[in-house]
Amino acid sequence: MAGFTLSTTCKQPYDATVALVRDELAEAGFGIITEIDLAATFATKLEVTTPPQLILGACNPRFAYTATQAEPSVAALLPCNVVVRSVDADTTVVEAFDPAAMARLSEDGAEERLAAMMTEVRRALLTALARVEERSMRTNEED
Amino acid sequence: MAGFTLSTTCKQPYDATVALVRDELAEAGFGIITEIDLAATFATKLEVTTPPQLILGACNPRFAYTATQAEPSVAALLPCNVVVRSVDADTTVVEAFDPAAMARLSEDGAEERLAAMMTEVRRALLTALARVEERSMRTNEED
Repeated sequence: MAGFTLSTTCKQPYDATVALVRDELAEAGFGIITEIDLAATFATKLEVTTPPQLILGACNPRFAYTATQAEPSVAALLPCNVVVRSVDADTTVVEAFDPAAMARLSEDGAEERLAAMMTEVRRALLTALARVEERSMRTNEED
Repeated sequence: MAGFTLSTTCKQPYDATVALVRDELAEAGFGIITEIDLAATFATKLEVTTPPQLILGACNPRFAYTATQAEPSVAALLPCNVVVRSVDADTTVVEAFDPAAMARLSEDGAEERLAAMMTEVRRALLTALARVEERSMRTNEED
């Protein structure tokens, strides 16, 4: 985990994890407004093979509106990316951009104006990640 | 301009600026792989009216590949967003996420592994922004 992400590792195949992530982001109030199949992009544009990897752009319109009203530049950090990356057949990493890093990057007091909202978005993302992890473990127990 | 963006202000209407930005990003080697009409999203989802604002997700596959090979977590910061935002009828702000901020967020030596590539992406974005500004001034002189 880098200093700017929240992440969890699931002992579960990639496709099943992608489905869980979609489900739990919706449950946490995030719509997915962009979607980039990074492995497919690299294969098409560069003819290189990489493990399956998807960037889901998660957005809660109310959070986004509040944030951009407080600090218009925050738009350059939207949507909040949630990356799903295959490590091996039974291991998948889920890694979200940490809203706390967004606040850390801000200047001129924007950090304070954004703090409460960032805390709320961060909590929602952490909840989604924890539920993805929990459900992936439950699936394994049922196997 | 926030601490995490590169920006320029054009004395030119929004639509003309969007066209220039698309053109110069392509010229600088960036494909636009995501596009979010933020004002439309806010209007639809929250029934609030905001000035026209677009988030263009710019990606150079080779830069993206090099960066994610050096530090997989960088995927959470892709694509590089370029925001075009109307201020008034003749003023438009163009603001890109600064790749240098990306390197600043990284830990564990990833900053060094990413530095050269980030410098290159940053230079390409700065060139695109400078050309957008220059062309918007030229348009105004011709008026």
